[in-house]
Amino acid sequence: MSTHTTVIIGGVAGGMSAATRLRRLDEERTIIVLERGNEVSFANCGLPYHLGGVIPERSDLVLQRPASLTARFALDVRVRSEVTAIDPDNRTVTVHDLSNDSAYSLRYDSLVLSPGASANGILIPGGNRAHTLRDLSDLDRIMAELSPLARRGGDEKPAAVVIGGGYIGLEVAENLHTAGLAVTIVQRGPQLLSTFDPEMAHPVAEHLVHTGIPVLLNSAVAEITPTAVLLSDGRALSAELVIAATGVTPETELAAAAGLRIGTSGAIWVDEYQHTSAPHIYAIGDAAEKTLAATATPGVVPLAGLANHHGRLVADAIAGIPAPAPRALGTAIVAINGLVAASTGASERMLRALGRPVRVIHTHPSNHVGYYPGGEAMSVKLLVDPATDLLLGAQIVGGVGVDKRIDVLATALAAGLTASALADLELAYAPQFGAAKDPINMIGYINRNQARGQDDTVQWHQLAGELAAGATLLDVRPAPARAEGTIPGALHIPLDELRTRAAEVPTGRLVVHCRVGHSAHNAQRLLAQRGHSVVNLDGGYLTWRAGTAGTHPAAVAATTPARPAQSTASASASASAQEISI
Amino acid sequence: MSTHTTVIIGGVAGGMSAATRLRRLDEERTIIVLERGNEVSFANCGLPYHLGGVIPERSDLVLQRPASLTARFALDVRVRSEVTAIDPDNRTVTVHDLSNDSAYSLRYDSLVLSPGASANGILIPGGNRAHTLRDLSDLDRIMAELSPLARRGGDEKPAAVVIGGGYIGLEVAENLHTAGLAVTIVQRGPQLLSTFDPEMAHPVAEHLVHTGIPVLLNSAVAEITPTAVLLSDGRALSAELVIAATGVTPETELAAAAGLRIGTSGAIWVDEYQHTSAPHIYAIGDAAEKTLAATATPGVVPLAGLANHHGRLVADAIAGIPAPAPRALGTAIVAINGLVAASTGASERMLRALGRPVRVIHTHPSNHVGYYPGGEAMSVKLLVDPATDLLLGAQIVGGVGVDKRIDVLATALAAGLTASALADLELAYAPQFGAAKDPINMIGYINRNQARGQDDTVQWHQLAGELAAGATLLDVRPAPARAEGTIPGALHIPLDELRTRAAEVPTGRLVVHCRVGHSAHNAQRLLAQRGHSVVNLDGGYLTWRAGTAGTHPAAVAATTPARPAQSTASASASASAQEISI
Repeated sequence: MSTHTTVIIGGVAGGMSAATRLRRLDEERTIIVLERGNEVSFANCGLPYHLGGVIPERSDLVLQRPASLTARFALDVRVRSEVTAIDPDNRTVTVHDLSNDSAYSLRYDSLVLSPGASANGILIPGGNRAHTLRDLSDLDRIMAELSPLARRGGDEKPAAVVIGGGYIGLEVAENLHTAGLAVTIVQRGPQLLSTFDPEMAHPVAEHLVHTGIPVLLNSAVAEITPTAVLLSDGRALSAELVIAATGVTPETELAAAAGLRIGTSGAIWVDEYQHTSAPHIYAIGDAAEKTLAATATPGVVPLAGLANHHGRLVADAIAGIPAPAPRALGTAIVAINGLVAASTGASERMLRALGRPVRVIHTHPSNHVGYYPGGEAMSVKLLVDPATDLLLGAQIVGGVGVDKRIDVLATALAAGLTASALADLELAYAPQFGAAKDPINMIGYINRNQARGQDDTVQWHQLAGELAAGATLLDVRPAPARAEGTIPGALHIPLDELRTRAAEVPTGRLVVHCRVGHSAHNAQRLLAQRGHSVVNLDGGYLTWRAGTAGTHPAAVAATTPARPAQSTASASASASAQEISI
Repeated sequence: MSTHTTVIIGGVAGGMSAATRLRRLDEERTIIVLERGNEVSFANCGLPYHLGGVIPERSDLVLQRPASLTARFALDVRVRSEVTAIDPDNRTVTVHDLSNDSAYSLRYDSLVLSPGASANGILIPGGNRAHTLRDLSDLDRIMAELSPLARRGGDEKPAAVVIGGGYIGLEVAENLHTAGLAVTIVQRGPQLLSTFDPEMAHPVAEHLVHTGIPVLLNSAVAEITPTAVLLSDGRALSAELVIAATGVTPETELAAAAGLRIGTSGAIWVDEYQHTSAPHIYAIGDAAEKTLAATATPGVVPLAGLANHHGRLVADAIAGIPAPAPRALGTAIVAINGLVAASTGASERMLRALGRPVRVIHTHPSNHVGYYPGGEAMSVKLLVDPATDLLLGAQIVGGVGVDKRIDVLATALAAGLTASALADLELAYAPQFGAAKDPINMIGYINRNQARGQDDTVQWHQLAGELAAGATLLDVRPAPARAEGTIPGALHIPLDELRTRAAEVPTGRLVVHCRVGHSAHNAQRLLAQRGHSVVNLDGGYLTWRAGTAGTHPAAVAATTPARPAQSTASASASASAQEISI
């Protein structure tokens, strides 16, 4: 019980979690929630799905209204109330009431900053034509332009350009496509989804193109005209609607002005109890800095799960029952036109940039046994600390069952399981749901083999070096499987003929490969025991193809020949700007 | 490398996993697989799905043939080869070749027993009309009867009775129903799925009845005539096809005759390396005893996942790289007409029988956020050691997303996570897949509240005792929600009116409840802080209804009135024999 006052700045996700939790812990406290926007507690993560009509009613996105929060939780919720200054010494905030343009001061005993992050937008000529999507006002503005376009009909679909190929960009692109627009994604960097490694991001781009959404990589936007998006290489994409999904920046102005410490990531510094550098002031959500679990480095992790969870924990801390927040894995997932991409923990890129040794494993399992109809393929990448065998991160791309496997891996990661212990997990098996040896078990087996030196592998990006150093590449797939594509220079002896044709296997270093790495593991074991120096191409042909298709100039010859994307691109695309197309 | 000979008895699941793994570890060893049946490496878990045509081709169930195993793994696979004796002193087995009725002796350096378990059948007059389903020969016999029935057409569906309501019984019932038969399930005990607690099993029976498969509980079969199944209470169920799915018994005769130790569970005793009591002899799979993780007691756990995993581990042990098998969780899952039921670890029944203190938590979340269309409800039960906060077991019943949550909990259980740590898990969230606070996080929050004394609860089976002792039951649901059903004697004040109507809340002990336990938690917090002695009815109305509906005579008045099941039951059903119907 207390007669304290807690003021919470920001009434969405973390802020509202903090408010309601605090009320359950303390019936007497005054709890004031100040929200700059018109609504509190709306479904940020659902916004893109209203564009495509998947969530048909805008009202479905408003989860709570101030009146209901007052009735149930006795909260003092004030919308259109912007805090313009914090005075940590006197424990006051200055509130600007946008509804009547007045200002007032409010005293707090504890203050929670949950202002979120703002969409970056793009600072180029015409950039103000590009809509960002962070709140319901943004949504309303986009819907005002989208609705007449979607209704227009006619032979030619209205064109939209989405600038930025991260989570939000992909969700918006899918939904505009669903709404009937011809959508093109323009991405500055060499791949979509920058938290993924390139060979895992490639299938996402490939899938988008397959399902009718061209993707332009390595493409910078120079200008937006009233009818088109102009790229820096001279191409023009006609665009009646333009969305900028180019990331977010933590809202730190208020905190910085009040003298609060800003972390090296650019977000508000907090300790593990969400306490800022100033007494009685806490920060949570997208505006607050996280410490990344895999690398122990500070970072910005703008995810709803962490915001909500830390909102609850900050209420506990304020109520006198503090519990530390674990470091952030950054587990995230996105579904685009039926493909699912998910990740947790560190990427190979992140680990190599830090100079960390890493064991990398790729597999391509089916989500359930092959004899039961409807199985869907997925690609799994696991990153392991070779010294400790502890999990460092994972990425999965596929269909049904991806969300399950990333959650199992995120749980294993959080629990400090070794990668070999994945082999022993007893996961639920019936033919609809998995396999007696689930994909998670299989990657555990592979890891245990590698940890014991029973399956030496090379990565797709190491193959060229192996071959240049004189190794022979041996393809052990059955002959019909080679119709899918081959790696230049490979000798071919099917696994089932390896014993009878042993004399044909060259001496000297061998790299064996199959489609996914499984048959090649059998071949590797067989040949190693017969005295060969032999390594397995990790992830097989599929990983090699995904890794070398496009993003790596050296491998361009091996990729599917490009034909023009379904865009209104003008001529003269530069060699560095790459169109992903099928 | 070795010139040793390993003989493996049983060429399915564990046996074949052992054989292929051993080959990868040792290219030189002689590996002989002796299989009594006509096929090796068939898909046991897929057998029921051929009955319903879900797996249309019988050949899809045969995963490997001897010739392909010889080509790829240089295995000596001998089908129709039954081992009739083991001589541990001389390290020989006697093999009966069923194809020509001859016998021979075979020497081994190491021997792996993977004979599996046999279906129990039923020892009653006419019991030989009831088919069991363990292998392809069983399947062929059933298909020979089923195919003409399924083709017959006509106004009345051919009737089938499935005796036994475990995993296999339910899968067979679903598939016979899919094939067009009128199926009735007869179960001797008071509930289906005996590894579940009654309030979790009840929705499964309810769902079966809803989807057109009557379930007769507490019903013993007395006789099977050429046209009917007669129950001991006098009812007769017409039946053109009868399946007995009444459990399995480990195949231990061979091992026992050779003097191997049989465990208290009735299965072959093995250590954690699958080594039996005799030198050089190992046992795996359904015939081998497991140690249950939650209780450290021996048990029979006939699951394909463990069989396959232990097959691999036994090969490692034989090859000189032994790794201990973890204790068994018994994670299992079954899907029946769109409903999914899954469990891992110990049940409340098992724990209470051992006198173990246990914290029980029920929740009823949606698999993903409500604002995204297509969410499916599930019921989750968590069992926690109150002294250590460690997970002991979990059960989940629902639709999409059940398999994911049971796998996350099985992983957490295996990793030794506390139940409170579930709150902190960073699971993948997008609106299609979960919530910013996933059902797993939510149950972690509830557990943490309870561990801290912030949410005292009573179980559905404790409510009557509370009320008898004078407590007041307070229903805090909004008024319209009470149309779903009410608990007799409850006072009603909606949560949102609790503060304004505080004067109406009686003094003295209170039990608050809502639909699922969430609003009641808010009420519990509010009232406790105002000085009331108040507990929350765990799992709310839904758990109470499931727990008291039918299986508990005291609660019969509160259940949905029964009407006759869609069976051909004759009159005079006894009071103890219960028909689940809607």
